[in-house]
Amino acid sequence: MKLLEDVIREKGTILEGGVLKVDSFLNHQIDPELMKALGDEFAHAFKDHGINKILTVETSGIAPAVFAGFELGVPVVFGRKNKSLTLQDNMYTTSVYSYTKQISNEISISKDFLDSNDRVLIIDDFLANGQAVAGLLSICKNAGASVAGIGIVIEKSFQKGRRFVEESGIPILSLARIASLDEHGITFVDESTDQNND
Amino acid sequence: MKLLEDVIREKGTILEGGVLKVDSFLNHQIDPELMKALGDEFAHAFKDHGINKILTVETSGIAPAVFAGFELGVPVVFGRKNKSLTLQDNMYTTSVYSYTKQISNEISISKDFLDSNDRVLIIDDFLANGQAVAGLLSICKNAGASVAGIGIVIEKSFQKGRRFVEESGIPILSLARIASLDEHGITFVDESTDQNND
Repeated sequence: MKLLEDVIREKGTILEGGVLKVDSFLNHQIDPELMKALGDEFAHAFKDHGINKILTVETSGIAPAVFAGFELGVPVVFGRKNKSLTLQDNMYTTSVYSYTKQISNEISISKDFLDSNDRVLIIDDFLANGQAVAGLLSICKNAGASVAGIGIVIEKSFQKGRRFVEESGIPILSLARIASLDEHGITFVDESTDQNND
Repeated sequence: MKLLEDVIREKGTILEGGVLKVDSFLNHQIDPELMKALGDEFAHAFKDHGINKILTVETSGIAPAVFAGFELGVPVVFGRKNKSLTLQDNMYTTSVYSYTKQISNEISISKDFLDSNDRVLIIDDFLANGQAVAGLLSICKNAGASVAGIGIVIEKSFQKGRRFVEESGIPILSLARIASLDEHGITFVDESTDQNND
């Protein structure tokens, strides 16, 4: 998505270790107009997939997810993060490791809001190692819900998450796919040469 | 706001101790259509207040805030919650006690996204004891930002937060104002008899 790539180039900053910081429009300050454009793009791509629910994880997936949910006319459920290992009644729970923050979080979703009648679109802000997506897929499996697609705002295509999703066979749309990033800048996956690009 | 009161009556559940659970449309599952209606209402009420930024706190304030931000054409900044007491560079930080969860969280906002040029609308999901709003007001004061208004989705008018805000003199709009709630149900503040209602 050209618009998003331009915003990332203009406003993203690259920290040591290849961490891309997009705090000015996605992860701390949110640009609502951009979020609506992203949400609309997800909705358009998956409108014929029979989706009745969007699943995301707090916090930064929520803004694009609610615009997509508005456009598709479906509710959004966000997985709650907490560090507690307390057994939680009536919750699907899984552990997700964040390489960036180097901590494990429990992600929980109430059984009241996910079951075998659900056909889900997963939306998240980043796909890198695929831990958050794997956690949400595991919760969907436990709930008996089917996953119709995965929508990612920014994918680091050089990390293992993309391959993990492709091997699952679930359709994926990543709105910006980063081939590489370092102190010299960001290179996006060239869509014209990428056969697997959605 | 009649629409919101109806949804609260229909879908809210009251737990022991007067806790109102609205997990099915606001705090865990999100109803995007309702969130847009709430966001539009805030935007309409504060459109002539010279607002250039919306401030909220993760997580449940984000959905109504991004719709309001879209309508007003302004960015949304969300305060990040964390339990760490580590000194954080370049951040405004304040401590907020949650009576419901009985824990204190640090709320942080980067100095990159709030300064003395900002005229802010604060939006949050609940106003009860006013701790979160007080925290955001304190951060705005430290940043030199002015606060043009406060928009609340659900106010528990019988708790001290409402009075705290009124004493601050900052205009407040609460879309649903709960006068009382117990096992018999919910009573909303009767707007026709409430002189201070916005």
